[in-house]
Amino acid sequence: MSQILHSASVKKLITKGLKAECKTLKENNIFPQLKVVLVGSDPASLIYTSSKKKFCEKIGALCEIVALDENISETEFKKTIEQINQDESVHGCIIQLPLPKHLSHLDVGHLVVKEKDVDGFHPENIYALIANKSDNKHFISCTPKGILTLMQESQIQVSGKKVVIIGRSMIVGKPLAMLLTNQNATVTLCHSHTENLKELTKNCDILISAIGKAHFIDESYISPNKNQVIIDVGMNTDTQGQLCGDVHFEKVAQLVSAITPVPGGVGPMTIVSLAQNLLQASKNRLSL
Amino acid sequence: MSQILHSASVKKLITKGLKAECKTLKENNIFPQLKVVLVGSDPASLIYTSSKKKFCEKIGALCEIVALDENISETEFKKTIEQINQDESVHGCIIQLPLPKHLSHLDVGHLVVKEKDVDGFHPENIYALIANKSDNKHFISCTPKGILTLMQESQIQVSGKKVVIIGRSMIVGKPLAMLLTNQNATVTLCHSHTENLKELTKNCDILISAIGKAHFIDESYISPNKNQVIIDVGMNTDTQGQLCGDVHFEKVAQLVSAITPVPGGVGPMTIVSLAQNLLQASKNRLSL
Repeated sequence: MSQILHSASVKKLITKGLKAECKTLKENNIFPQLKVVLVGSDPASLIYTSSKKKFCEKIGALCEIVALDENISETEFKKTIEQINQDESVHGCIIQLPLPKHLSHLDVGHLVVKEKDVDGFHPENIYALIANKSDNKHFISCTPKGILTLMQESQIQVSGKKVVIIGRSMIVGKPLAMLLTNQNATVTLCHSHTENLKELTKNCDILISAIGKAHFIDESYISPNKNQVIIDVGMNTDTQGQLCGDVHFEKVAQLVSAITPVPGGVGPMTIVSLAQNLLQASKNRLSL
Repeated sequence: MSQILHSASVKKLITKGLKAECKTLKENNIFPQLKVVLVGSDPASLIYTSSKKKFCEKIGALCEIVALDENISETEFKKTIEQINQDESVHGCIIQLPLPKHLSHLDVGHLVVKEKDVDGFHPENIYALIANKSDNKHFISCTPKGILTLMQESQIQVSGKKVVIIGRSMIVGKPLAMLLTNQNATVTLCHSHTENLKELTKNCDILISAIGKAHFIDESYISPNKNQVIIDVGMNTDTQGQLCGDVHFEKVAQLVSAITPVPGGVGPMTIVSLAQNLLQASKNRLSL
């Protein structure tokens, strides 16, 4: 029987700690506040931003969705971010992706100042991740951090394990590869040009898919009896319009040792990481 | 018969181009100048810095070795770097590693300003590498860049190939993994906690060793008849005190398709990359 890695219980546990932490911060006159900059009205982005706001409020933090017109000029957009960067009452800021076409050339890593970059996209935060700096001044990208937390809380050992990551994005694949390498995993980073992908996935201990293709990973990518762990980062819609992952859950679940569901697996962990980063950013203000 | 990847001919070819480029820069009143900061008198460091100076002068660039006392205070050391950062006649600056113990806690990535960081250690340069920015404003770490150049000039295809890198340092392993991933290779990054290392090395197309252990890679890590390419980044001394690589050349060379010698393989390519970065930094000044 395989273990279904629902994130609900881990989330609940961490939430309790975050609430207590937030309370302490407020007692020290720090009122953690996140600004979520949302340009336009992409339906998925609306759902994601509202989930983030809801969770921040649940732990006792402030969260404002800064909704901007989808035709906002680049100058006005940058001005808005700059104001948030300078606003001392704000501790964290994220820019909801994707940005509309006329803003998509912008390097989001450089927009939010590093002290408020709770998404972990700033060059200094990426650098700290790669350099394996274990201080609390830097932020680890939310999805990679959430995946590691979920595995740790689920007693899934990473050190010494062969990990295959599919997808080499700046948001998931690349930072995750570095994070897990720092945790002593042996990571193979795969992508659209990888040849014999199945040979690699069949031979790994932990398979992490972040490619955004509904039901891409089926039983042919898996070795039954190898006790593999499957982490599904995909957030896709299937032919019936239902939210689904990169992994064909029904075909794969029975063949592996553990697997994350979609929804209810990695997604909520990303929001938990965001809240952790926000409180860390708030605490850092305290020590300034 | 395996191909011995001597870098001499590639170096010669590139040197010709660099000389011409340097001449053009001088005609535009840009006199490329590198400062090599050397603290103390580590024998290997003395050799490396003098090779760098020699090559810079060969292409027509200026190079000064800024030799500092090994007991220099942190304040004085930082002041020296700061002066170089501000000196408009200097286009590139590198700090020869390793630093003595009392300075080894310093994050070298943050010492030299990014515009003069021809070693590619600055967070902005590391970030640009990971983000696969193909502009000319950023610098790629010299050893990874040199390895890629050597493979490209030797007609060794990287795209779609399985690459195993041993060693996860910030100077070689990690940036090289990102660089080759950007080149569409499927990279596995191995290290001291990797289990069944031989299984991985026997199954790859290109094996890159950067661990610093003399003769570590012998025939037991190789699959004969798989036409593997071996890149040896090691710079070690053997029991007779002779310079040697991580790879036991005599035992491995006949079993593979191509292999770099030590000396005369990767080492000189690192210096070539440094000179390329210096001229790029000088050209960037022109366009400011």
